Amino acid sequence: MHTLFDIQTPAALVDAGKLQGNIQRMQARMNSLGVRFRPHVKTSKCLDVVRAQLAAGARGITVSTLKEADEFFAAGIADILYAVEIAPAKLPHALELRRRGCRLKLLVDNLDSARAIARFGQDSGERFEVFVEIDTDGHRAGVKPDDAALIEIARALQGPGAVLAGVLAHAGSSYDASTPAQLQAIAENERARAVAAANALRGAGLQCPIVSVGSTPTALAAETLSGVTEVRAGVYVFFDLVMANTGVCGIGDVALSVLTTVIGHRADKGWVLVDAGWMAMSRDRGTQRQPIDYGYGLVCDAEGNPVPGYTMTATNQEHGIVSSPARAEDDVVRRFPVGMQLRILPNHACATGAQFDEYNVVEGTRHIATWSRFHGW
Amino acid sequence: MHTLFDIQTPAALVDAGKLQGNIQRMQARMNSLGVRFRPHVKTSKCLDVVRAQLAAGARGITVSTLKEADEFFAAGIADILYAVEIAPAKLPHALELRRRGCRLKLLVDNLDSARAIARFGQDSGERFEVFVEIDTDGHRAGVKPDDAALIEIARALQGPGAVLAGVLAHAGSSYDASTPAQLQAIAENERARAVAAANALRGAGLQCPIVSVGSTPTALAAETLSGVTEVRAGVYVFFDLVMANTGVCGIGDVALSVLTTVIGHRADKGWVLVDAGWMAMSRDRGTQRQPIDYGYGLVCDAEGNPVPGYTMTATNQEHGIVSSPARAEDDVVRRFPVGMQLRILPNHACATGAQFDEYNVVEGTRHIATWSRFHGW
Repeated sequence: MHTLFDIQTPAALVDAGKLQGNIQRMQARMNSLGVRFRPHVKTSKCLDVVRAQLAAGARGITVSTLKEADEFFAAGIADILYAVEIAPAKLPHALELRRRGCRLKLLVDNLDSARAIARFGQDSGERFEVFVEIDTDGHRAGVKPDDAALIEIARALQGPGAVLAGVLAHAGSSYDASTPAQLQAIAENERARAVAAANALRGAGLQCPIVSVGSTPTALAAETLSGVTEVRAGVYVFFDLVMANTGVCGIGDVALSVLTTVIGHRADKGWVLVDAGWMAMSRDRGTQRQPIDYGYGLVCDAEGNPVPGYTMTATNQEHGIVSSPARAEDDVVRRFPVGMQLRILPNHACATGAQFDEYNVVEGTRHIATWSRFHGW
Repeated sequence: MHTLFDIQTPAALVDAGKLQGNIQRMQARMNSLGVRFRPHVKTSKCLDVVRAQLAAGARGITVSTLKEADEFFAAGIADILYAVEIAPAKLPHALELRRRGCRLKLLVDNLDSARAIARFGQDSGERFEVFVEIDTDGHRAGVKPDDAALIEIARALQGPGAVLAGVLAHAGSSYDASTPAQLQAIAENERARAVAAANALRGAGLQCPIVSVGSTPTALAAETLSGVTEVRAGVYVFFDLVMANTGVCGIGDVALSVLTTVIGHRADKGWVLVDAGWMAMSRDRGTQRQPIDYGYGLVCDAEGNPVPGYTMTATNQEHGIVSSPARAEDDVVRRFPVGMQLRILPNHACATGAQFDEYNVVEGTRHIATWSRFHGW
């Protein structure tokens, strides 16, 4: 394949220049804030992307599944944080990775799980490094920094089967913000509460070497990260329309898109039918409650320039409907003839990327590489 | 693996008895209505499931991608209808399948595509069998039965490169119905307009051998199918919560679920955290605008019995939040301990199944088989 026009649709495209720009921007920011950067690889699940992140200065990776740990450890990346509370039945898998030399770190937010890890570690002769998740915004999992359970959980992680590696926070509420002031406040709250938790542990006489925080919006909005030792972020590598709505990137920074082809029209309705439906875009409607709702994605021409006013307004499994309610007078048959290729920028890069087995890497319309990605558990 | 409790989560489960019951019910209905049944295999993308459909009496299959045609033709299934308007750039792929003996049928709804097929067929010495899509409810693609374009398109499909195979209709609006009377009316409208289109073609002196209609709700609601020669339906094979909301199946008929494990709690909020998030469930929120909104899915115990009041109310990539606003007094830590397995019934079986590489087939809690499924294009 020499150009984008040779690619069968639907296909996932990655703009090489934008990808590299996003990687450099985040790493430069982490360097200036004086923290270690541990990217979350759940966004790309692609070795080529992760190697570019490490080459730029990232140290270690964050994963959302043990499958990711398996794949990246097989490629030689040993410092891996599994940032989802582990189900007890997955401990033998974690053990097997540790025994093979993977410096896999686990996460818990409750006493039952902490005890299960410590017991399993002791029984199997392995000392697991374990983080405790801190809840900073009521968004999902975690222990509040001032909850007495935090000290109890950490104490359960002292012994031959487990060691407390540190505390971890993720300000998931940052995705709902849309101004720099909101984001700075959420970032500062994430930082302050994670550090408070670490200090509470230290006050109880426990070691807490790592203070890990992060999300793409807070990593880019934080003004200081005093007391934090490492930052995690994932979606920044591609960015997407949800991130553009938070204000941390522009539309022009979005490196991932879905290439699709016009297959028909309903001229009476101003509809263009394309061969990318929700199977390609994913069902993610993350911009639905944000300042600008892009439907299932923002329409660009094959070169990647937005087509003003046009979004993917509806999808079926393998059909997408592209339209512009604001431009009902357009002759869509003439403007978007059958066979024309379009790029659709996604709401959520993690969800859209996951629908594909490979990324087609382009520079402009030139096809320069095909990168495989994996999925599953 | 001997039981469901040996399966690593998240995992897709298929209840063997329910699957077989769904297959038999649909085939019996098609037999009693006197029509040929051509199941849509985009739901399962699994050879084991499709073989069970064919064994029950289905004749030929419907696909949504040429990848599905490739895979099922490689397994010996030659009568395949590709039920999405073909992009011109996919014609060489279709030609290659035809030349290898696949009786692949194509679909168009516009003159440009019809001419492109006829020209490509003539140039390559292949006579493509082509359906024209009829729009019966304004839902998506298709030509209206009384549109003069119908005859024009059909005439473009007469010659050495193409032959008109018939007309095809899909009443996608049936998914929005929720009473038997509504569904019967939509089914009758789908039938009547498809037959009207066929008769319009015949009145213009054209052959129109096949009249193909269908969607799971209309296939199960139709009272007569006079003039119809074949029916297509897909999601019936698993059913799901969207289908239960339309009334064509019960919750107890849903054969697909996601097995997940409890990984923590937020007792103060009544939340149970599980290791299936939107990556496992998909982002499909198809029940959001239906009579009962199940969030991301309905919670059942490991044996498959619904846990009254509990749904998956929120998801992140690998986290699900299970809760019951109506049972805020429940002690969720005691009721759903860490390590407990749950089954989550999905909103939309086509979207949820697509997140997995295999189905774990169970009878009760006994694991009886692992069936692979494919994805991609």
